[in-house]
Amino acid sequence: MPHITMPAQSFPGTPGLMQYRQETGRPLSELAEVLLRDDNTLSRSDRELIAAYVSSLNDCYFCRHTHGEMSVQQSDDEDARAVLEKVVADLGSAPIPAKLKALCAIAGAVQEGGRAVTAELVGRAREAGADDTEIHDTVLIGAAFSMYNRYCDGLAAVVPEDPSAYVPMAAMIIRDGYSMCARGH
Amino acid sequence: MPHITMPAQSFPGTPGLMQYRQETGRPLSELAEVLLRDDNTLSRSDRELIAAYVSSLNDCYFCRHTHGEMSVQQSDDEDARAVLEKVVADLGSAPIPAKLKALCAIAGAVQEGGRAVTAELVGRAREAGADDTEIHDTVLIGAAFSMYNRYCDGLAAVVPEDPSAYVPMAAMIIRDGYSMCARGH
Repeated sequence: MPHITMPAQSFPGTPGLMQYRQETGRPLSELAEVLLRDDNTLSRSDRELIAAYVSSLNDCYFCRHTHGEMSVQQSDDEDARAVLEKVVADLGSAPIPAKLKALCAIAGAVQEGGRAVTAELVGRAREAGADDTEIHDTVLIGAAFSMYNRYCDGLAAVVPEDPSAYVPMAAMIIRDGYSMCARGH
Repeated sequence: MPHITMPAQSFPGTPGLMQYRQETGRPLSELAEVLLRDDNTLSRSDRELIAAYVSSLNDCYFCRHTHGEMSVQQSDDEDARAVLEKVVADLGSAPIPAKLKALCAIAGAVQEGGRAVTAELVGRAREAGADDTEIHDTVLIGAAFSMYNRYCDGLAAVVPEDPSAYVPMAAMIIRDGYSMCARGH
């Protein structure tokens, strides 16, 4: 049960909180829209994978399943679901490109704390081909999901247990964008 | 030295990062504006105190000094600076009202992780007079500074060492609002 009284027809998880307080919901959903969906040299699927990875490190069931599903549904790889599970289980041995792996490692350091991002981690991402904007966006995705995860679980938002519940939710966000979350239907 | 190449004339800390990438800087600064400056039953000084407290727990020197200064300069209490130091040193014994202390305790739990916010902590804040919106905003301030702190230190942004450097910076934000950060001069 959430720590605050939510309207009966709310979305689950973070989107429900964005609806509850639309003044903060608007910049929160706009940040997700820019970071995860706007034009970028990193694909939408890869950025969502980084978000799901950070959410799994923060043990946030809602965000890990929402953004994992967003990554899988926007991937060209028919093995995307198995790859996601491998990234979440053990990044080091997961079958993903070196650049994406190095960026996930940076986001994982951010999850620990800002000072855990070392010049060595950043250097490894550059060697694998990452540029300044990609490194900036990866750090900000790691930081933003350290917020969204705490926002969701810190207010004990309603979280569907069945992973299949996240399939239509992700499809709706892919169709309508994150700004839909704060606006409601 | 920052992990990415910043223009020579950038602001220090998080504002410099908001200028570097204005597409994300806009929602990031708007979130701070709504949470910390818009009309609220919690005073601007109290909300900035919560932000400074979370930033001190995250050991983020830039945010702890910026938002500490924002809190002191917007307080009616002539002892505000001494009170801030006591909150940062030991919340339990700090001479602040029971409601603000209970809200700081919630924000401190959020800094640890979303699941650390217990019904007991929320109940104590309610007993001291906090309502749903105040509890919501406190959780989101705790979560948002778990982001801003990681964003600042995760990119190794330039951080002035001299605490007096934060005095004019805070005065400028109090005058012009947080949206100034992403826009620049």
